[in-house]
Amino acid sequence: DDIRAYAREIVGREIEKHAADGLGRVDYALASGGAMVVKHSDPYIVGKGSNWFLMSSRSGIHPDAVKMLKPSFGEPGQCFPLKGSRGFVQIRLRTAILPEAVTLEHVAKSVAYDRSSAPKDCRVSGWLQGDDVDHAIDSEKMFLLTEFTYDLEKSNAQTFGVLDSAASGIVDTVRLDFLSNHGSSSHTCIYRLRVHGFEPDSVSMVTMES
Amino acid sequence: DDIRAYAREIVGREIEKHAADGLGRVDYALASGGAMVVKHSDPYIVGKGSNWFLMSSRSGIHPDAVKMLKPSFGEPGQCFPLKGSRGFVQIRLRTAILPEAVTLEHVAKSVAYDRSSAPKDCRVSGWLQGDDVDHAIDSEKMFLLTEFTYDLEKSNAQTFGVLDSAASGIVDTVRLDFLSNHGSSSHTCIYRLRVHGFEPDSVSMVTMES
Amino acid sequence: DDIRAYAREIVGREIEKHAADGLGRVDYALASGGAMVVKHSDPYIVGKGSNWFLMSSRSGIHPDAVKMLKPSFGEPGQCFPLKGSRGFVQIRLRTAILPEAVTLEHVAKSVAYDRSSAPKDCRVSGWLQGDDVDHAIDSEKMFLLTEFTYDLEKSNAQTFGVLDSAASGIVDTVRLDFLSNHGSSSHTCIYRLRVHGFEPDSVSMVTMES
Ligand SMILES: [K+]
Ligand SMILES: [K+]
Ligand SMILES: [K+]
Repeated sequence: DDIRAYAREIVGREIEKHAADGLGRVDYALASGGAMVVKHSDPYIVGKGSNWFLMSSRSGIHPDAVKMLKPSFGEPGQCFPLKGSRGFVQIRLRTAILPEAVTLEHVAKSVAYDRSSAPKDCRVSGWLQGDDVDHAIDSEKMFLLTEFTYDLEKSNAQTFGVLDSAASGIVDTVRLDFLSNHGSSSHTCIYRLRVHGFEPDSVSMVTMES
Repeated sequence: DDIRAYAREIVGREIEKHAADGLGRVDYALASGGAMVVKHSDPYIVGKGSNWFLMSSRSGIHPDAVKMLKPSFGEPGQCFPLKGSRGFVQIRLRTAILPEAVTLEHVAKSVAYDRSSAPKDCRVSGWLQGDDVDHAIDSEKMFLLTEFTYDLEKSNAQTFGVLDSAASGIVDTVRLDFLSNHGSSSHTCIYRLRVHGFEPDSVSMVTMES
Repeated sequence: DDIRAYAREIVGREIEKHAADGLGRVDYALASGGAMVVKHSDPYIVGKGSNWFLMSSRSGIHPDAVKMLKPSFGEPGQCFPLKGSRGFVQIRLRTAILPEAVTLEHVAKSVAYDRSSAPKDCRVSGWLQGDDVDHAIDSEKMFLLTEFTYDLEKSNAQTFGVLDSAASGIVDTVRLDFLSNHGSSSHTCIYRLRVHGFEPDSVSMVTMES
């Protein structure tokens, strides 16, 4: 009976986590929460047609860019493809936070057609851009949040903690640089990037309470 | 071996329920099933822009209203935000039913930015509007289906049974009145309302069979 | 402790499979992977309005057809409805494959309003159409991949292996003929058809390796 109760408990907890966006962790880079892609390297366009034209007249942000700030629900193709094996994406978060970790997700091995387009060596940096979005930020105000290698043999959503050296900085903008991928020479696909942390207000409240 | 079989059985059953819209229960208020929001209190508009303008020229129904009749898949922001801490939404069901229960769902605690916009004290009533949709219904033909308090500490989808006194009435329209929320003074978010019950035909068939 | 570890392992594996599109199996008929419906029998139109008109000016493919190449996420209504109890849908796969199995999915019993529109007796055939999409294919170049009966009492996603006689043919186009349904005289709903198999390149690589 103890074992049955235990089995039920594990199942309940794990399904709850799965239902809560897979990780059960707040994501400040989620499109439906107000985050957006504000800059990126060249997108990978297959058969450069009218879509590209329509897009280029706007803000220079490809319409598929938002896909990397949305859940993929296990579906191949729900990603933002960028040209080549090196590139970057810059994201304005929902609000300024004290970052704790980032999660990079690719499509699951079991349903993927090909995983050579997965990013491999990555670097994530962050800074506080504030309201003046056109103003270039001094590189000394940018924090290196983390560097990591996305591993095709591990779980498809991989979380990496923020470096201690960056732990005290508040950021509202995050940049993912991918320096290599898992083999594709034509493009690299970003399925989803999440950014975890705390809002400064709740942080100060915690401090005041303690 | 018995225990293993038991563990597999629980897991299978729970995942099946999760995959079947989380509850494994028919929802007559589902948008993809033909239900729709037919009336609501003032929506909460952030930066009242062109969206609002476009919308107001139509039927008085905000384009985001339909979100409360769709699954949220654990994503913050997939809700219909209404102004203030009191308000209502009126829903035309897919078809006339004998109502059994309603489920109110908010976003899971683990992924939410803030849950002060969750509804708190609620009342759900129902009636048979029929084909004459513009005709106001006598209040005596409206049933109080249930009154409840949405509890932030419980599971994010909370189901409430219909009161016995209302159990014999067939309804095709349901109205949710929220009388308070969990703290936000600006707005209240409805992630999803589901309405469960039986279609009269299947009810009479059951009666005839027994 | 062994039992606990075992329980965790089962739960983890099953949730991973569920998260990986339910089956954890590559689907070459997935819309987001590049597959598309290229031909179908008469669609079932409720209240033939402007939607139909807009649609007919295009390629003869109903805008809802793509729904049968997308996940349904347990939601009733996320299907392609065709007129009557007999009909067909023809699908161009993402790429040419050596087919192994097909999966036909209907909405889960527990959330369905009515399952009389589910397909019953089915036949799936396939062939290599190649680049000349307008060219009619000799019937002798078509393979019968499988014949089956969709069973309402079983799991809602039912997988059927490809017949041995068809096992050596490479196909890029697949046709589902449904010959009967589960009772509806007006229409038949296809929630999702998946096609599983291997890409010839990876097949030859496997052969070369062994
Ligand atoms: K995505
Ligand atoms: K929703
Ligand atoms: K579907």
